[in-house]
Amino acid sequence: MPDPGLLEAFPTPGDTPFVIEHVSVEFTSVCPKTGHPDFGDVTLRYQPASKRAGGKCVELKSLKLYYQSFRNEGIFYEAVTNRIRDDLVALLNPAWLQIRTDWRGRGGIKSVIRADWGEVPGHFRGV
Amino acid sequence: MPDPGLLEAFPTPGDTPFVIEHVSVEFTSVCPKTGHPDFGDVTLRYQPASKRAGGKCVELKSLKLYYQSFRNEGIFYEAVTNRIRDDLVALLNPAWLQIRTDWRGRGGIKSVIRADWGEVPGHFRGV
Amino acid sequence: MPDPGLLEAFPTPGDTPFVIEHVSVEFTSVCPKTGHPDFGDVTLRYQPASKRAGGKCVELKSLKLYYQSFRNEGIFYEAVTNRIRDDLVALLNPAWLQIRTDWRGRGGIKSVIRADWGEVPGHFRGV
Amino acid sequence: MPDPGLLEAFPTPGDTPFVIEHVSVEFTSVCPKTGHPDFGDVTLRYQPASKRAGGKCVELKSLKLYYQSFRNEGIFYEAVTNRIRDDLVALLNPAWLQIRTDWRGRGGIKSVIRADWGEVPGHFRGV
Amino acid sequence: MPDPGLLEAFPTPGDTPFVIEHVSVEFTSVCPKTGHPDFGDVTLRYQPASKRAGGKCVELKSLKLYYQSFRNEGIFYEAVTNRIRDDLVALLNPAWLQIRTDWRGRGGIKSVIRADWGEVPGHFRGV
Amino acid sequence: MPDPGLLEAFPTPGDTPFVIEHVSVEFTSVCPKTGHPDFGDVTLRYQPASKRAGGKCVELKSLKLYYQSFRNEGIFYEAVTNRIRDDLVALLNPAWLQIRTDWRGRGGIKSVIRADWGEVPGHFRGV
Amino acid sequence: MPDPGLLEAFPTPGDTPFVIEHVSVEFTSVCPKTGHPDFGDVTLRYQPASKRAGGKCVELKSLKLYYQSFRNEGIFYEAVTNRIRDDLVALLNPAWLQIRTDWRGRGGIKSVIRADWGEVPGHFRGV
Amino acid sequence: MPDPGLLEAFPTPGDTPFVIEHVSVEFTSVCPKTGHPDFGDVTLRYQPASKRAGGKCVELKSLKLYYQSFRNEGIFYEAVTNRIRDDLVALLNPAWLQIRTDWRGRGGIKSVIRADWGEVPGHFRGV
Amino acid sequence: MPDPGLLEAFPTPGDTPFVIEHVSVEFTSVCPKTGHPDFGDVTLRYQPASKRAGGKCVELKSLKLYYQSFRNEGIFYEAVTNRIRDDLVALLNPAWLQIRTDWRGRGGIKSVIRADWGEVPGHFRGV
Amino acid sequence: MPDPGLLEAFPTPGDTPFVIEHVSVEFTSVCPKTGHPDFGDVTLRYQPASKRAGGKCVELKSLKLYYQSFRNEGIFYEAVTNRIRDDLVALLNPAWLQIRTDWRGRGGIKSVIRADWGEVPGHFRGV
Repeated sequence: MPDPGLLEAFPTPGDTPFVIEHVSVEFTSVCPKTGHPDFGDVTLRYQPASKRAGGKCVELKSLKLYYQSFRNEGIFYEAVTNRIRDDLVALLNPAWLQIRTDWRGRGGIKSVIRADWGEVPGHFRGV
Repeated sequence: MPDPGLLEAFPTPGDTPFVIEHVSVEFTSVCPKTGHPDFGDVTLRYQPASKRAGGKCVELKSLKLYYQSFRNEGIFYEAVTNRIRDDLVALLNPAWLQIRTDWRGRGGIKSVIRADWGEVPGHFRGV
Repeated sequence: MPDPGLLEAFPTPGDTPFVIEHVSVEFTSVCPKTGHPDFGDVTLRYQPASKRAGGKCVELKSLKLYYQSFRNEGIFYEAVTNRIRDDLVALLNPAWLQIRTDWRGRGGIKSVIRADWGEVPGHFRGV
Repeated sequence: MPDPGLLEAFPTPGDTPFVIEHVSVEFTSVCPKTGHPDFGDVTLRYQPASKRAGGKCVELKSLKLYYQSFRNEGIFYEAVTNRIRDDLVALLNPAWLQIRTDWRGRGGIKSVIRADWGEVPGHFRGV
Repeated sequence: MPDPGLLEAFPTPGDTPFVIEHVSVEFTSVCPKTGHPDFGDVTLRYQPASKRAGGKCVELKSLKLYYQSFRNEGIFYEAVTNRIRDDLVALLNPAWLQIRTDWRGRGGIKSVIRADWGEVPGHFRGV
Repeated sequence: MPDPGLLEAFPTPGDTPFVIEHVSVEFTSVCPKTGHPDFGDVTLRYQPASKRAGGKCVELKSLKLYYQSFRNEGIFYEAVTNRIRDDLVALLNPAWLQIRTDWRGRGGIKSVIRADWGEVPGHFRGV
Repeated sequence: MPDPGLLEAFPTPGDTPFVIEHVSVEFTSVCPKTGHPDFGDVTLRYQPASKRAGGKCVELKSLKLYYQSFRNEGIFYEAVTNRIRDDLVALLNPAWLQIRTDWRGRGGIKSVIRADWGEVPGHFRGV
Repeated sequence: MPDPGLLEAFPTPGDTPFVIEHVSVEFTSVCPKTGHPDFGDVTLRYQPASKRAGGKCVELKSLKLYYQSFRNEGIFYEAVTNRIRDDLVALLNPAWLQIRTDWRGRGGIKSVIRADWGEVPGHFRGV
Repeated sequence: MPDPGLLEAFPTPGDTPFVIEHVSVEFTSVCPKTGHPDFGDVTLRYQPASKRAGGKCVELKSLKLYYQSFRNEGIFYEAVTNRIRDDLVALLNPAWLQIRTDWRGRGGIKSVIRADWGEVPGHFRGV
Repeated sequence: MPDPGLLEAFPTPGDTPFVIEHVSVEFTSVCPKTGHPDFGDVTLRYQPASKRAGGKCVELKSLKLYYQSFRNEGIFYEAVTNRIRDDLVALLNPAWLQIRTDWRGRGGIKSVIRADWGEVPGHFRGV
């Protein structure tokens, strides 16, 4: 069961803005309609708030455990993507944040879902 | 025969905008001029209207069956592309929508047709 | 319906042995179990009998039309592969012949079927 | 000899703007300086004028025959590119049109020539 | 829990030998030591016994369900590979059979395990 | 018109056997049936006879001109391949020689023709 | 121990602006949490100040030695990236400067960290 | 010794703007510090001035000979790039011009230098 | 300092022969001549002795720690390869064993060292 | 001028046979006919004689300098390949040795020359 309680954060190292990207290539959940497993990549991209504003970064191992908590959950592509975005925004309160999920596909159709939060810079949109 | 009646939709999960992309790599129809089969990929990209505005998403299996209904239809590249765009806009009434078809080609010429509807963001145009 | 009557042959140009390979990347048939289309590549490789022994080559356009005759046939991977091998051996009576079919797959499983006839040289086996 | 008389057009299917791209990977002409053949790809990209404005699309087979008419012509890269642009603009009178030629090169130098006509959208420039 | 009871077979179509290969790119199990999921590809390659000898082929959907039954099993790479080989040999009694598992790896080390049964032809060994 | 008179040879540099391979990626001829151009790669591989036996190597520029002499010839894939083999064997009288032609294809079918002369070592066959 | 004292600079060659990019594919440091080594690529991109403003370029071999000084340092991805940016800005006082680190990853998650300084042109952001 | 006297130009064919790109993949010079050879690619991209303004194009073979004149010159990456830009601007007086050099690298560091002249369009910057 | 004491083994699961391959893409040591770090991949391939003969497999995490113990060792390519082979043969006493090291190279030269022990099957040699 | 006096060797580390491969991707010489530079890769593969037989390995930096000594030499592909083979055999007196040169090509023709010495194992021939 997806468990945001597994997520941990640490303070951002400074006030100069920078951008963090983590690409997990081992995401799996279950299709609620067919019961078959879904496999995909999850890309998280965000700019932490500045240090003086209490900016935070997600701890990498906790992110991995959080993703693993979807393993046996029956949940649609769209819901996975929106859920991860909302859980990470709640944890980090970042300057902006972006989730992209790439699904291996079924029946000859591959899917990509993109969900942004806040003012994502133009050069990160659509990529 | 292309049958938009096969298409089904479900309500979008929320009001925060997000973007959905489905790439079918198993599209085939028939060239009306030569009678030979055409093979291509079909990329659908769209942003559902918000939930409070009655936004809808296309159901994936119904999309597959709809694409399969072109299998024995004699129809040109341009018409396939415009037809799919129009059928999906009628179904979804989305914020914006984009169809791209990539054809394997005949006689050493590969073709790509792009058809947009509504205000497609700049970073999705031409890709 | 698969129609070997579409196949045409022409005499091989000489007595020195040589090897012909035709790879069709636009094969499609229908899964008899689910009714969904299957997509694949078909590789034909063979050595014509020598000219003095009445050796023959398959005419390329007729081969294409023969492959197209499987378009709406409900037939399994294994049967497609064995059928094509048998029809072409009957047409050509070659020194040896080999069919390899590569299927795009369903449910995360891609398949390859290889069927030989006669003494296929070692360096063509398993490739 | 390059023959624009080979080109044929048909009416565009509707008034909603869309973009057509044809990539020929089998173009060849002759270098007027050395007499050696040149080989390249020709990309044509354009938006037809709207139907009510008499918009037209180039017929694919006629495009192929037109390209073949350069086969034994002694002509420089730059002239090929400008010539094709001008002949197609004359035929189609499109909203905008773009030609890109990619040449395999001689003496370790590969070349690309890009020629636009009309208001090519920014996302198609330089690609 | 790995369940060979999910596997189904059907009679091979004929007496002429041929070779079947199924590559699953969506295999996952759990590392019994760390509790973290493992991800890999499983390649099955075999030659059915001849029809007159009661030769059998594995049914593709049943193979998929059998692989899915490893999803939450704590089991090492080597054991997965040997287990699949033994279960499929018991089901099919083939002329020969080969399993190759490719694991995405942990800590910078990717692994491949190969297990053969019977007289695998030389051109299929080590590939 | 294919002109073997364009071919030139020079003496091999020594008696120690070695192997020469030239891959031309700019071959074109004409299909005698349709009149459309064919495009392909031509690979020549051979071992010159030893110096004391009068061994010869083909001069590279003359090979290029010879290949260019097929430019407007109506000739089938098989005939091109056998013709080149025979012309080069006549010129070089090598220890062994091999021609492979790879054709870009028409109607979704790509072709490869391989023609050997003499005792081609096993590791060069089928590649 | 990271040692910016290893860095050396030389005067920029002129006043016309230009952009320099150095990609090191052999960076390694140590994870302070687990003690295991981390491996990554470091991309440095910057525009030197103009010559009349005392612009400087980093000397390539000194950059390599500086990167090697992280070899046995326990330091997080984010800190590596910010540290390198700050050390190079202090050395060069450039028009603008950009650091991108690409990490091979642990537990199925690959990471990219991007840190800019000054007015990085839009076409270099996010790449 | 780099010799701009080798460069030749010819008049641009017309007044409609177009863009020319030449990529040389066989550039070599010598590192003035170590005496070891450097190897790289040189990309030249420019828009000739219009015909009525006396626009010129660089002749391809003369460009090749000019590049070859750097072969035994001891010269740094940055100086090569600025030198080529200046020599070609002096020759062509173009609307705009761009040089990009990609160096294979030493000690695990690959480098790219970009130098522009005039108003290079945004879609060509940083590529 | 390379420490074979870090290596651990566990009993092989059975008597049917099978082959294990571990590819580490994060190996680094130090060149004893220049003091600069070397980076490479290490491939280990072996067949454990049968269970009844006391066959053993190397434990994956211990292998990783053993490889890490070379991190600050000054040692040549050839010595690394022979050392790893000898340490693992001493640990495992396998049916056969093979080490291949791929080095990223210095000064434009990449290197591969292959060291076998026992009767390595032909299809694993040279790969 | 090619100078084998630049080559240095060191004693092989032991008696167990192993194989060494060095691939130089920065070789250049000059075509004696046209005066234009040639660019290629040089692969050296050999098995040193055993230690007790006085086996030797080529020192890597000396090999690089030896290759650089061809930089301004007018010499044909075939002669380069045979020359390098002979110089290295004279230096090393190895169990066997193999040279493969890959040339970037001129006029659309790429070339590969292979020269062996002694009993090169079958799995290294033709690769």
